[in-house]
Amino acid sequence: MKKILCTLALSFFGIHSAMIAQSSDSLNIRKIYDMSLLNGKSYEWLDHLSNQIGGRLSGSFNAEQAVDYTKKELENLGLDKVWLQPVMVPKWTRGEREFAYVQTGPGDTRNLNITALGGSIATAEGGTKAQVIEVQGLEQLREYGEEQIKGKIVFYNRPMRADHILTFEAYGGCVDQRYSGAEEAAKYGAVGVIVRSMNLRMDDLPHTGSMSYGDLTEDQKIPAAAISTNDAAYLSSMLKIQNDLQVYFKMNCKNFPDVQSYNVIGEITGSESPNEIMVVGGHLDSWDLGDGAHDDGAGVVQSMEVLRLLKETGYQPKKTLRVVLFMNEENGLRGGNKYAEVAKEKNEDHVFALESDSGGFTPRGFTFNATDSQFNKVLSWKPLFEPYLIHYFEKGSGGADIGPLEGGDTVLAGLRPDSQRYFDYHHAANDTFDAVNKRELELGAATMASLVYLVDKYGLDSISNTAQLKK
Amino acid sequence: MKKILCTLALSFFGIHSAMIAQSSDSLNIRKIYDMSLLNGKSYEWLDHLSNQIGGRLSGSFNAEQAVDYTKKELENLGLDKVWLQPVMVPKWTRGEREFAYVQTGPGDTRNLNITALGGSIATAEGGTKAQVIEVQGLEQLREYGEEQIKGKIVFYNRPMRADHILTFEAYGGCVDQRYSGAEEAAKYGAVGVIVRSMNLRMDDLPHTGSMSYGDLTEDQKIPAAAISTNDAAYLSSMLKIQNDLQVYFKMNCKNFPDVQSYNVIGEITGSESPNEIMVVGGHLDSWDLGDGAHDDGAGVVQSMEVLRLLKETGYQPKKTLRVVLFMNEENGLRGGNKYAEVAKEKNEDHVFALESDSGGFTPRGFTFNATDSQFNKVLSWKPLFEPYLIHYFEKGSGGADIGPLEGGDTVLAGLRPDSQRYFDYHHAANDTFDAVNKRELELGAATMASLVYLVDKYGLDSISNTAQLKK
Repeated sequence: MKKILCTLALSFFGIHSAMIAQSSDSLNIRKIYDMSLLNGKSYEWLDHLSNQIGGRLSGSFNAEQAVDYTKKELENLGLDKVWLQPVMVPKWTRGEREFAYVQTGPGDTRNLNITALGGSIATAEGGTKAQVIEVQGLEQLREYGEEQIKGKIVFYNRPMRADHILTFEAYGGCVDQRYSGAEEAAKYGAVGVIVRSMNLRMDDLPHTGSMSYGDLTEDQKIPAAAISTNDAAYLSSMLKIQNDLQVYFKMNCKNFPDVQSYNVIGEITGSESPNEIMVVGGHLDSWDLGDGAHDDGAGVVQSMEVLRLLKETGYQPKKTLRVVLFMNEENGLRGGNKYAEVAKEKNEDHVFALESDSGGFTPRGFTFNATDSQFNKVLSWKPLFEPYLIHYFEKGSGGADIGPLEGGDTVLAGLRPDSQRYFDYHHAANDTFDAVNKRELELGAATMASLVYLVDKYGLDSISNTAQLKK
Repeated sequence: MKKILCTLALSFFGIHSAMIAQSSDSLNIRKIYDMSLLNGKSYEWLDHLSNQIGGRLSGSFNAEQAVDYTKKELENLGLDKVWLQPVMVPKWTRGEREFAYVQTGPGDTRNLNITALGGSIATAEGGTKAQVIEVQGLEQLREYGEEQIKGKIVFYNRPMRADHILTFEAYGGCVDQRYSGAEEAAKYGAVGVIVRSMNLRMDDLPHTGSMSYGDLTEDQKIPAAAISTNDAAYLSSMLKIQNDLQVYFKMNCKNFPDVQSYNVIGEITGSESPNEIMVVGGHLDSWDLGDGAHDDGAGVVQSMEVLRLLKETGYQPKKTLRVVLFMNEENGLRGGNKYAEVAKEKNEDHVFALESDSGGFTPRGFTFNATDSQFNKVLSWKPLFEPYLIHYFEKGSGGADIGPLEGGDTVLAGLRPDSQRYFDYHHAANDTFDAVNKRELELGAATMASLVYLVDKYGLDSISNTAQLKK
């Protein structure tokens, strides 16, 4: 009887504690959102990064400006430590703006909106002019083979599929054309490639992005450009009328030897378990065409804001919380690899890493690279996010920069904002500050900070948490 | 034993049917989304409404153009019936563009961005100039009373609260200043009112909207304008320096007698229960400053698209499905009232009405004005919407135009798109076609069509549905 009473008392106590915990968590999370929406810093930081610095391609002056600026701003937050982590990065420059036209008749041309893909070689000094052949992807290229490809410019024109609800899936289904299109076409003797921009919208903006020549030797490489969706549609319809159409393009891009750069890191040292490390981050570099406001200025300032929000709302993390602003996500991932390499060398215990690199749009939730038990732990927090319309909790990748931290018990997570408009701006000249809505950016930062708060407070290991509750 | 076997067989059959139903519903809903995203018409219609017609204030030539255009387009869809429902609407014109300045010193002025509120009288022909007094709302106005208000221009400056997650709640907490500000200030002898725009963003655009003079006589009425958020902040800070600051404003708006207009209605007559009517709609009129693309061109074209999507995917509604494009939501609600009045006269049985009037942004879900049992029925469909990230199912209002249909068993529902950016555009000059994203608009239309499909197929009455299952 005594045992039963005791159990009942414990149960009652347990329920009561759980209710108090839930209610104080609700209040703390509300405080985080209020701070972000009423007294946020993320938008002001993004304004500076976008408008006073601008596009931040790895190895550029702007990228170094961004390193200096964010380091200084992190220092102003009064964190326990702020430092730069050296990393060598590739340097590629676009040079003079690209120029292209299609020859529609003798002496009759129409200009095309193109942009060099990142890492591409330049065309010959006088430009490259050749007959164009349209393919729907790498498979069709192989079907055509050397006989039909040799001496031509290959025009990859498979569009992103509009029927994917998550636009990243549509991107995933097309981006092989951009990444490997030149390497593959070169094997069949093509003299250049033009790839339909990774954009679901019809407009005049070409979208750049990374590409690879694989194992091609220098003299096998061919120049690669992206073309706007409107001009891709135009070129395709012209080819139906006139299948020996010639296109001219001139690009002035150049690869340089690697240069010194840095990841920017700030830390609030854990008050109870300083050796357990949580990372929140985005990437500081961007493409050069716009300001890199969505990709990934938003992720950078949201990650910085996570630490500020916790500090300002008076929450002292038990674990060590680091913001890592990674260099060179776009064309090398050197920063992400370096951070993981150093962490391994130092035998650091990373329990959690959260990346924001999907634009500064209204947050919808997160994806998690986690075990079932870790994921279930996260799912138990879902009700706390409901008032903020955060509903999307799925298994999936965390993000490119934190990817190299995968292994052991480390949970990797990615913020998932609404994706519908992301590829309207991605890697294009319109990825600028004005395309980011202040509230949407701030909601994202608060959503990230709330997850970090819960991970810090309750951990991701259901066993250790039970142990804590028993104390 | 026989009875038990029979029950088991029935149960098995029941479960099996339910599984088939679920799976065929998933497929049908997938077809609806695919049709909207791959072969949608909504964006093309919105382009015409926005760019070839433009702002469609009740009683204007543009509003009548919109009636003609949408009637013709509904006829092109091959519906069973298309007709115009006559309704008398107010006519108010803005006239020559408004002009305002603040007198910062002798001969020293700074222009202010203002716009007349819909329904306001003009200023005196030479404009109105008076000392300004800032209040935080109607309560503070009453505290100041006649002594401090008489002869002055009242400047209502309570901002929308940024900490509301649903921006409509922030709007609801401020819009009394716009709607009743002039009526109340006139009672204390004010000579005009200037209201901070209902906008969460700091920018230079004044946002118009409806206002009322209540029971004031003609000679008691005073002119009312909205001021941009940037200029509201400027004016407020200037008043702190110089509290006897004078503002001048000139407005040329005019009220005319009511004119003839129309609701536009199209119908697919029900194949099994033609007397049970489902309505889907938005409002055809808009304010005059922009194109009315979000408010409510989006709702108009999404509602039209619902009927087209069901037709094109081969679904024949059992109940009668009507699209109603309401006239005069913005400054009178005459169309909504007329539709309900005629429905009552004809003793029509409206089982369901769905409105889209919250912008063409990414859909998040719906609110329902329904009984618990009806609402639970809707909740049972939630899993079917999950693949489309539609998660928000809450009790709440359906919408202004369908509001007058409330009563009996009629379920009223409102599409709830993401609300973060809505008030950046609401009633302002930037509510134009380019502010609407094609995919977001199309996802909204498909989401609405999917709900209509389920309401038609399963009904909203759990008892009658059980009866159907037994057949």
